[in-house]
Amino acid sequence: MHNNKTLTIKNLGIDTYRENIIYMRSDCHVCRSEGFTALTRVVVHCMDRSIVATLNVVQSELLRHGEAGLSTVAIKRLEAKKDNKITVSHLQPIPSVGLVRAKMYGKELTETELEQIVGDISKGHYSNIELAAFITATSGNHLSTSEIIGLTRAMVRSGEKLTWDGNLVYDKHCIGGLPGNRTTPIVISIAASAGLTIPKTSSRAITSPAGTADTMEVMTNVELTMSQMKEVVTMENGCLVWGGSVSLSPADDILISVEKALDIDSEGQMIASVLSKKAAAGATHVIIDIPVGETAKIRSESKAKELKELFEIVGKNIGLVVKVIITDGSQPIGRGIGPALEAMDVLSVLRNEHDAPEDLKQRAILIAGELLELSGKSERGKGVKMAAEILTSGLAHKKLMSICEAQGRFTEPSYADFCMEVLSEVDGIVERIDTRKIAKLAKLAGAPKSPKAGVLFNAPLNKQVKKGDVLLAIYAEAKGELDYALEYYRSQTQIIVIK
Amino acid sequence: MHNNKTLTIKNLGIDTYRENIIYMRSDCHVCRSEGFTALTRVVVHCMDRSIVATLNVVQSELLRHGEAGLSTVAIKRLEAKKDNKITVSHLQPIPSVGLVRAKMYGKELTETELEQIVGDISKGHYSNIELAAFITATSGNHLSTSEIIGLTRAMVRSGEKLTWDGNLVYDKHCIGGLPGNRTTPIVISIAASAGLTIPKTSSRAITSPAGTADTMEVMTNVELTMSQMKEVVTMENGCLVWGGSVSLSPADDILISVEKALDIDSEGQMIASVLSKKAAAGATHVIIDIPVGETAKIRSESKAKELKELFEIVGKNIGLVVKVIITDGSQPIGRGIGPALEAMDVLSVLRNEHDAPEDLKQRAILIAGELLELSGKSERGKGVKMAAEILTSGLAHKKLMSICEAQGRFTEPSYADFCMEVLSEVDGIVERIDTRKIAKLAKLAGAPKSPKAGVLFNAPLNKQVKKGDVLLAIYAEAKGELDYALEYYRSQTQIIVIK
Repeated sequence: MHNNKTLTIKNLGIDTYRENIIYMRSDCHVCRSEGFTALTRVVVHCMDRSIVATLNVVQSELLRHGEAGLSTVAIKRLEAKKDNKITVSHLQPIPSVGLVRAKMYGKELTETELEQIVGDISKGHYSNIELAAFITATSGNHLSTSEIIGLTRAMVRSGEKLTWDGNLVYDKHCIGGLPGNRTTPIVISIAASAGLTIPKTSSRAITSPAGTADTMEVMTNVELTMSQMKEVVTMENGCLVWGGSVSLSPADDILISVEKALDIDSEGQMIASVLSKKAAAGATHVIIDIPVGETAKIRSESKAKELKELFEIVGKNIGLVVKVIITDGSQPIGRGIGPALEAMDVLSVLRNEHDAPEDLKQRAILIAGELLELSGKSERGKGVKMAAEILTSGLAHKKLMSICEAQGRFTEPSYADFCMEVLSEVDGIVERIDTRKIAKLAKLAGAPKSPKAGVLFNAPLNKQVKKGDVLLAIYAEAKGELDYALEYYRSQTQIIVIK
Repeated sequence: MHNNKTLTIKNLGIDTYRENIIYMRSDCHVCRSEGFTALTRVVVHCMDRSIVATLNVVQSELLRHGEAGLSTVAIKRLEAKKDNKITVSHLQPIPSVGLVRAKMYGKELTETELEQIVGDISKGHYSNIELAAFITATSGNHLSTSEIIGLTRAMVRSGEKLTWDGNLVYDKHCIGGLPGNRTTPIVISIAASAGLTIPKTSSRAITSPAGTADTMEVMTNVELTMSQMKEVVTMENGCLVWGGSVSLSPADDILISVEKALDIDSEGQMIASVLSKKAAAGATHVIIDIPVGETAKIRSESKAKELKELFEIVGKNIGLVVKVIITDGSQPIGRGIGPALEAMDVLSVLRNEHDAPEDLKQRAILIAGELLELSGKSERGKGVKMAAEILTSGLAHKKLMSICEAQGRFTEPSYADFCMEVLSEVDGIVERIDTRKIAKLAKLAGAPKSPKAGVLFNAPLNKQVKKGDVLLAIYAEAKGELDYALEYYRSQTQIIVIK
């Protein structure tokens, strides 16, 4: 259904984030002959590329006759240049949306059906409304184990797949929910020092104040092409990049952006998301860290065990060796919460500074130890000792520096301009911490979008504090955000309970 | 959290349909001091009004320093004038979205919780993504009977409620799914002639080629204020207006626009939507028509009976007398499918034309008869006869004309400019009709957004046709749409099966 009448692109410079928008005059001949009105979803063709976009109708002189505007992301995806011509045609109904509707009504989806849905999502054919419907229909406990397996496989197939020299490729992942738990750069540095092939692709934050990719971006470039990434791994055994820049499981990145807007990250989707990324990145052995705590993402030991089992079953079915460890998630790890503040903690541990956060160090050593044992580099039961030695020797720090340099730069993290300390109003002992509220505080201060924003946490459980001691410091890059976070802190009780 | 720095409104003339968008320069002082980036949801204040809007960041000279653009609908909702000043502040997280998340995980929502959700929706605080999540989480069989009752009550309370002189107020509703089934204007005309108070508010099409409001709009004004509506009912006993223009159950209209985008209309939401509109419109007695057919919305007698029971239970709990009738939904009713074409059928029946569609006439008489019996105007078993007499006498036609005039105008419907007839290629008898595909054909031709577009259907079940006979005619207001519909017709088999 191509329309032969062409329009000339005008770049209006409107950043709609991820959404393809086309702006057309209400009296445009194409709108009129095709019967388009506001919100019609159309196919836009430019040279040999095409995208699906939503129409916004312009009733002003923003556009001249014969011109069409495109949002910034739409221009980028079309690889269009100024004055390029486009044609616009009707979008055929997307058949896989019918499968999403069937899922709402309780249908169990087959792998083939999930593949159709994931394929259309990765091509950008779903609107935000349709994405939200798919996410909601498959949230909670609405995915069966075989659907999770099917979804995982479909996600792997939707994108590119990396291959590496050598048979065994290692990876690790923490399911999150624990602010400041930035073990990954330390673990990768230790494992790569020991000779494991460990090409790490991380995500940006979904609902947390920082993802590993956000933290690494403070120190180095994380948006590498696949060939750049391979070069880094050939040189250093490991890398620390953002998964989204290498087209692994592209449907996942699209889904994550909507999950973020809904502030949900449900079980089946999480497993499919994590394991598809690992499989697509070419991993053969993966350690999954599940922190458990009253206010962490997973709240009970029994829930963690269920999840562990599901991770292992799905892993097995897609050909991955998955080992799950369950860790303490009762409070934030380290001091910093937010990209730059967490990067400082990571460097402090790797540099063996005397005041480096001990909890972060111990946890990184534990996970690295598991990897060393899984790979046979260390005997059973001696992984932790070997990991600690590599860290103490300074080899791990040297490795991180080399990886950063290989990725294009190393930048020392620095503090944000705006800071406010929260002081204890009483003497006593820290008895309870609401980890979720602390994460929220860091987000309200601007993390992760403002990389220097966040919380410096100074009141771990059981710490003896005096009136006037600093419990935490809020950092922000804008005054408005600092005030906003502080207002939230003041409106809440029970964030840090001192008895 | 008001920000004292103001911006001047610039009307960019961008029609985003229902979505509030604010356009701000990337280097805008407000963006910078507040930490806003693309897709941030913000509160926009203008004089004493405020709305929630999504931010699109402008990286061009579309806006000058100190200016902010607003989408057409945002300007309308703010009642803003050119050069008015606005301030922009952070949107506090909406607590009721947490309840939607809980629902995804299977929580049964209480009436109070549903009221919070519906309240926030009707204030326009939900993004399209959040609306889609709520709709999906409550679709299929995910609402319990008590949740449907709670949702219905919450929807009634979210808007205004009409009151009428006299105790008994009648209404009717067809749950749709049957193209061309435009009994309402005929039924209302008969009932109002008999003296029943029957102030009818109808919806526009959700997923069908025409709603009663779309059809009535061809003939008269349907966007009346509440006081105009009351005036019409005082004079004529009845009216035929669009429900959305009188703020009855405003959350419902917002939800319907997203349901339409997802092409779903699920049971619990449908019952809440229908009965909340009836209760808010002040009805005490309602007839619900459920057509059943293989390709209609409700496909089996048993499903229809379940739905009937649920309608009656919910009705009882919110204080409405609901009588459900189950009718034949095996094929389109009348000839026209699409707003103007259906209006022609309605007028043909009311004018007692010799070739008026008999099926439409009989069905309207049946429903009107039920109303007459329910009201006591007729003895049990004699309603149909009385309704037929009122129709044949011409009183009902006179009543429709008076109602239209009272609503501001009567316009005779006319045909669209573009038309294509589909002829039978064989001799035989019409054996099967795919009602859904015929509805889709009318939609692809542009209905209901193009009021004259649609299908004139000429091949009812069991009709004897000859090769070359017209099976149906497609009408469109634009050449592109006519071609598009025709292409669809040709790509399908089994739309009309002749044996």
